[in-house]
Amino acid sequence: MPEYTGYEGRSLEFLKSNNIVVGDSVKILSDLTYSGIIMPRYEHSDNMHIVLKLNSGYNVGLEIEKIKKVEKNEITRKIIEKKGKIEPTQGLPKILLLSTGGTIASKIDYRTGAVTPILTADELNASVPELAKIANIDAQVLFSEYSENIMPEHWLAVAKKINEFEKSDYSGIIIAHGTDTMHYTSSFLSFSLAGFPIPIVLVGSQRSSDRASSDAALNLIGATKFITTSNPKGVYVVMHLDESDNTIACHLGTRVRKNHTSKRGAFQTIGGSPAFIIAENQIQENFSGDYFKIKEYQPKIKLDTKVALVKYHPGYDPNLLNQIVEMGYRGIIFEGTGLGHIGKTMYESVKKAKGKGIFLGMTSQCIDGRVRMTVYESGRDLLNLGIIPLENMIPEVALVKAMWVIGNYHDSEEIKKIMLQNVASELSD
Amino acid sequence: MPEYTGYEGRSLEFLKSNNIVVGDSVKILSDLTYSGIIMPRYEHSDNMHIVLKLNSGYNVGLEIEKIKKVEKNEITRKIIEKKGKIEPTQGLPKILLLSTGGTIASKIDYRTGAVTPILTADELNASVPELAKIANIDAQVLFSEYSENIMPEHWLAVAKKINEFEKSDYSGIIIAHGTDTMHYTSSFLSFSLAGFPIPIVLVGSQRSSDRASSDAALNLIGATKFITTSNPKGVYVVMHLDESDNTIACHLGTRVRKNHTSKRGAFQTIGGSPAFIIAENQIQENFSGDYFKIKEYQPKIKLDTKVALVKYHPGYDPNLLNQIVEMGYRGIIFEGTGLGHIGKTMYESVKKAKGKGIFLGMTSQCIDGRVRMTVYESGRDLLNLGIIPLENMIPEVALVKAMWVIGNYHDSEEIKKIMLQNVASELSD
Repeated sequence: MPEYTGYEGRSLEFLKSNNIVVGDSVKILSDLTYSGIIMPRYEHSDNMHIVLKLNSGYNVGLEIEKIKKVEKNEITRKIIEKKGKIEPTQGLPKILLLSTGGTIASKIDYRTGAVTPILTADELNASVPELAKIANIDAQVLFSEYSENIMPEHWLAVAKKINEFEKSDYSGIIIAHGTDTMHYTSSFLSFSLAGFPIPIVLVGSQRSSDRASSDAALNLIGATKFITTSNPKGVYVVMHLDESDNTIACHLGTRVRKNHTSKRGAFQTIGGSPAFIIAENQIQENFSGDYFKIKEYQPKIKLDTKVALVKYHPGYDPNLLNQIVEMGYRGIIFEGTGLGHIGKTMYESVKKAKGKGIFLGMTSQCIDGRVRMTVYESGRDLLNLGIIPLENMIPEVALVKAMWVIGNYHDSEEIKKIMLQNVASELSD
Repeated sequence: MPEYTGYEGRSLEFLKSNNIVVGDSVKILSDLTYSGIIMPRYEHSDNMHIVLKLNSGYNVGLEIEKIKKVEKNEITRKIIEKKGKIEPTQGLPKILLLSTGGTIASKIDYRTGAVTPILTADELNASVPELAKIANIDAQVLFSEYSENIMPEHWLAVAKKINEFEKSDYSGIIIAHGTDTMHYTSSFLSFSLAGFPIPIVLVGSQRSSDRASSDAALNLIGATKFITTSNPKGVYVVMHLDESDNTIACHLGTRVRKNHTSKRGAFQTIGGSPAFIIAENQIQENFSGDYFKIKEYQPKIKLDTKVALVKYHPGYDPNLLNQIVEMGYRGIIFEGTGLGHIGKTMYESVKKAKGKGIFLGMTSQCIDGRVRMTVYESGRDLLNLGIIPLENMIPEVALVKAMWVIGNYHDSEEIKKIMLQNVASELSD
């Protein structure tokens, strides 16, 4: 039966009149000449476009009105399954793909220009036929949330799900995740699953899978290649290195940050190069050593959300800090200025917090570099007030770590000790 | 009378026995060979070092014990004044140097390793003899604070002082400032003094003036050259471009951020190149057009500190936002995720804030890139709740701008209008 998934009205008519179906390899002349495979479409699309997967791996939406000519390559017709019923190939490594939502599992609504999360993990898998050549991928949907709506309870759910596969025959686990808070999730998994025996790779995309410039396919392919080739323990974030179409960066999950709102190469390793660079046929290794500094796998899948991130700035009202203290918070991570400072006006409130036994950690809003609180008088004052300098831990990572530490340990000396202990490469040289 | 300022005990003995005084040009053999001028020392120093200003402009502290040989260049002896009594040179442009404190006006205590703020503006001027060849510099101390202790009331004091010189014969004004919050101060001056007729240049240093690797002298020289050569209206931050000793970057005061805790090239222009690059004998211009989008100089030196910066993260407790609302805040700048998002859990509190007439602006914790709240459902929800997307304004700049706008305008429509209006290049393409 001819396959026209998602095509209706004008676009269906267009396919039929040109005698092409989903999965056909075609050459299309429009503003440029495009070569690729006709892709299925999904609800939320208009009828004015057809979707073509280019040979580069990107999908492009082509407006029917502007198409001057369609040529079909009869021989190279490929099969694209509707429901991800891809048959496993014997001998290939097995990978588990968990989908949590986000742009990578989303499609653009051409009518409104907005993006909605509707792809299932199976559809995601099926939409990138290259994956089946590298690994046998089992796909599961965990939930379908944009990452701005991912909460600590979602982190727990992901960690518990992964923990079920401690003793599986998977070579690694890929988590499709929204990019907004992907680095928060990668941090929590790093701490709670420290020592996990197979790589955990978070992958997202900055442009939805059916947009011309989508980075979803290449990021997924990069993650799959990384797992099947390198296979080191750890939690990684795999995304485009930059605007180029052929280089994928693999970042340590506790040293990475989303540093651009829209670029495909939005993620950067702070204070260094990405751990691995995945190009067409090779993987460059910039990171050696163990990601996990804790060797034994002893999952600690708990957390305490009563940790506040206080970004200091001139005019910061110490009463805001007083409120946090009175609301029963158990940890405060300061995003201080420079080497790790907050103004003198904060000292009284800091004393109150300390008096209540709240853990107080210092990071820097500079993001890059190390806090060092012995250089200036003010830093030494803060040390005397009991604020712990957290070396070069990224503020967001320090926040997640404090939630995790305080959720799993209760003695204040132990909390301090674990906060300063390198658990999952969150501290670097 | 021989000049030995600051040298005592062993170090004084060393100078006398080698027949050298402050201001002498010498060649010293230690671990390496150093050529430069013997500099005065100040209190808080030990007696084991002499300070040499290298030909590169940097000061180096040399341990007496390790010095193998000292040679004096009799002829090129230079005069270094003790109290900055530098005679003006006819025909040179005039610059006003205002000191507010910070590392640039500090010296390291060799015994403790800590830095304390003790240089006056005059001493600062005198410690960089090169300045007198470029401009006649008048120096004034405004206050002496590390920049983590600079508060909005200090911003007001600086702005009011500068405003006094609207009709002066100065070619520009240099403000020596701590680096931690220099970009907050440059933002406030940009808005409150929009249209000011001569350049205002903030300059700091990451290493104190008497440290080997101090960047103070070169940054000051760079600022002076910039004013005497380019002289465009605006507020700028002048610091090392990178670790190189000969390139100084001049950043737009509303597009700059301290992005490293300790590097000399810690400041970066967000989303672009520095406006000007000052090399040995030339200035490269990357910025054309007017810094101030408001042409008429009409100072508005008021502010309202009741503006909060809310950095959203997974697990952010909406009750914290409720507290801000209840504390009578008049503006909230969100540092959302990605394109400008906060989780659904925040919506009810946002509604409360909106109901109280609080100005709500959205920026991104990605720092680089533009917020765009029409791409995803969640962004559109937030737009419907009345949050205003602040384009590519840097979060810290948006905070300062909101303090300034709310301090000077009272109608909520006007506040919104000015927040979105490009006043001082805070919005860029």
